[in-house]
Amino acid sequence: MAENEILVGKKPLMSYVLAVITQFSDGTSEITVKARGNTISKAVDVAQIVKNKFAKDAKIGPVNIDTAEVEAKEGGKINVSTIEIPISK
Amino acid sequence: MAENEILVGKKPLMSYVLAVITQFSDGTSEITVKARGNTISKAVDVAQIVKNKFAKDAKIGPVNIDTAEVEAKEGGKINVSTIEIPISK
Repeated sequence: MAENEILVGKKPLMSYVLAVITQFSDGTSEITVKARGNTISKAVDVAQIVKNKFAKDAKIGPVNIDTAEVEAKEGGKINVSTIEIPISK
Repeated sequence: MAENEILVGKKPLMSYVLAVITQFSDGTSEITVKARGNTISKAVDVAQIVKNKFAKDAKIGPVNIDTAEVEAKEGGKINVSTIEIPISK
């Protein structure tokens, strides 16, 4: 995953918020928060908390939603929804 | 809620997909799928299934994410993330 992308998974919400804030303070001007499946809601929370609490001048969007094929545990492929949320400041 | 809005909640995924498809076949040309909190992931699934399986010519977006204040059960207010996904055909 590229340095300016953050994939939201099972860690606590605030660890992803911190990752975004850290990259902004390292000089990155645009970060894309990504997620798939059940963590999509958490990715939206990350973007909103960054904007509301830490970087009120940040711009969010355009948000992109899509579908990806992943290998199922039982074999075969299943579709999962994905989201990409760019945050820039 | 307006006729061309669908709020995704606790019902099964496919009941929201069916609601979108039904409104399209009743002649509605743009429907907004909305959700807040944990159901945001399900709203993205609804939009993607409508597009991938039932209305391949549909356009999705621009997706809007925001924060709303809701009354907490314990009293006081809490913030929840929201999403609005317009689907047009």
